[in-house]
Amino acid sequence: MTSSVNTRAVLVSRPVGLPLPEHFRVEQVPRAEPGDGEVLVEVHYIDVQPAMRGWLAERPAYTPPIELGATMRAQGVGRVLVSRHAAWREGDYALGGNFGVQRFSVQRGEELTRVDPELAPLQQYVGALGSSGLTGYFGMLEVGQAKPGDVVVVSSAAGAVGSVAGQLGKILGCRVVGIAGGPEKCAYLVDELGLDAAIDYKAREPYRAIQELCPEGIDVYFDNVGGDLLDAAMLHLRPRARVVISGMISQYNNTAPSVGARFYGMLLVRHARMEGFLVRDYAAQFPTARKVLAQWLKEGRIKTREQILPGVESFPAALPMLFDGRSFGKLMICATAQ
Amino acid sequence: MTSSVNTRAVLVSRPVGLPLPEHFRVEQVPRAEPGDGEVLVEVHYIDVQPAMRGWLAERPAYTPPIELGATMRAQGVGRVLVSRHAAWREGDYALGGNFGVQRFSVQRGEELTRVDPELAPLQQYVGALGSSGLTGYFGMLEVGQAKPGDVVVVSSAAGAVGSVAGQLGKILGCRVVGIAGGPEKCAYLVDELGLDAAIDYKAREPYRAIQELCPEGIDVYFDNVGGDLLDAAMLHLRPRARVVISGMISQYNNTAPSVGARFYGMLLVRHARMEGFLVRDYAAQFPTARKVLAQWLKEGRIKTREQILPGVESFPAALPMLFDGRSFGKLMICATAQ
Repeated sequence: MTSSVNTRAVLVSRPVGLPLPEHFRVEQVPRAEPGDGEVLVEVHYIDVQPAMRGWLAERPAYTPPIELGATMRAQGVGRVLVSRHAAWREGDYALGGNFGVQRFSVQRGEELTRVDPELAPLQQYVGALGSSGLTGYFGMLEVGQAKPGDVVVVSSAAGAVGSVAGQLGKILGCRVVGIAGGPEKCAYLVDELGLDAAIDYKAREPYRAIQELCPEGIDVYFDNVGGDLLDAAMLHLRPRARVVISGMISQYNNTAPSVGARFYGMLLVRHARMEGFLVRDYAAQFPTARKVLAQWLKEGRIKTREQILPGVESFPAALPMLFDGRSFGKLMICATAQ
Repeated sequence: MTSSVNTRAVLVSRPVGLPLPEHFRVEQVPRAEPGDGEVLVEVHYIDVQPAMRGWLAERPAYTPPIELGATMRAQGVGRVLVSRHAAWREGDYALGGNFGVQRFSVQRGEELTRVDPELAPLQQYVGALGSSGLTGYFGMLEVGQAKPGDVVVVSSAAGAVGSVAGQLGKILGCRVVGIAGGPEKCAYLVDELGLDAAIDYKAREPYRAIQELCPEGIDVYFDNVGGDLLDAAMLHLRPRARVVISGMISQYNNTAPSVGARFYGMLLVRHARMEGFLVRDYAAQFPTARKVLAQWLKEGRIKTREQILPGVESFPAALPMLFDGRSFGKLMICATAQ
């Protein structure tokens, strides 16, 4: 028998700067029951991703802010326990854009996406087949327009988005240089993921490192970081280069005004393009992309690394790990684990 | 009989900050004679444009720096006096990418472009049919991809580039708002050029002015300025907006590090694109573009305003006018005038 108690993480105050455990409270509340057209889902894996920082701000961005006292928003994957929607049955697996950081979630049936657990392990649906992996995929293919022979540089390349972007670059026939923090992550990029080279931004000045590793410049810079790494890459753009703005994690916790793209003037002299995107812009293509990525996962052409923390209770301490370099691989919570 | 003396402006020192008359010397030297394959041109009109500032720096950019003591580089239009090249005859009119700021210029015949003085008045070849006008044309059409119904904002809209960009926006069926400094230029934008509205950046805070005049946001921002105007426009981008980086005149004379695109993060949330270009990227299309623009000039659909200074001697004082708002319309020198 399933518990009638739901465990959830709620936002109790808005961070100024880095999000800390104290900004959340984990509480137990009665489990909601699904109404007509709704489905009760037991959440298995909860995505923990840098974009969450933006959702905590009071100012609306591309999504409305999370209200104080509300369940923290999160993508997740789980199993249907009770269905009052014609399309879903008990035992089905589903992906939800907003299951929330909680053990059980009640959702409108039409807001769920069917998951095939035969295609890939369930946790991949919040990783390589979830918004992180899809961001790497569409960012590199559609926004970056990476082509064989291109020189590609990826920042935060050991992360959930960057690792898919970088490996996709290799599949496409590019020379790929990844940027990450620390020797362990850099070794992973080259030895495990098969990138051509890695730059440890904690150990090397990024401008000089790029100059040495990409002496003829960069065709695609896939950026998750912003700040100094973006500056260094911009100064090495080749003609007709594409700068993919996937994220800017170095700026999310700023309390002072953000550092911008200081050398955007390079776009002019190199006839280059800087383009941002949100992965949901490509939602119509998600089913196909998931099939392609799942196939590559099976073939070992795309490798992933997960960092799975047990239980909803682990969320408040998990989020800060994304911003101080402690996370390595796709950070997620296994809500069914104790 | 033509003079055997050439008058030219040479660079004598490199400006730090604003270029001043003292950075140039106007001198008289014996006129060079054309060798085999060369042509002697009497220069009629000399283009004075903001990009010249970049050419004065010691650091190479997209063109090599001008050497100290060398003739100042400039686009120009003139008449062939002596030809030792099969394609040219005395009396032909020609456009040269580097006639220089001088009365007479000797050039390789293959480096000149034929000019049809019947198509448009000669001075238009350094204005609307020269690199300024072509920058407005290709920037709006090819980089900005302006479409009917788009909301277009153009900075430095009364200038040589911006005025063509803005009027082209109107021809394409866009709503066009121009930004310029002072009531006279703003009246010109609306009353003469037919733009929908104008913002006097000296009198109004640009963020609020854009918000008021473009309440639903901007589809194409055609930027010649950078800095605060770019910031204000970026904050109003609509989804899939295009930011055309044509110039950044507010930053050319910086002695401190340039202000970048501070709000480039808007590219991400709006899936927008920022793209730079140099007009020479479209050189293969210049002949067609000149015909189109000349036709619109004849029909009065594109209007121009010229500020023509007499004689090569006027160059050292002319260049600073581009940076302090004193120029209004296309700044050029009539080298044949005294």
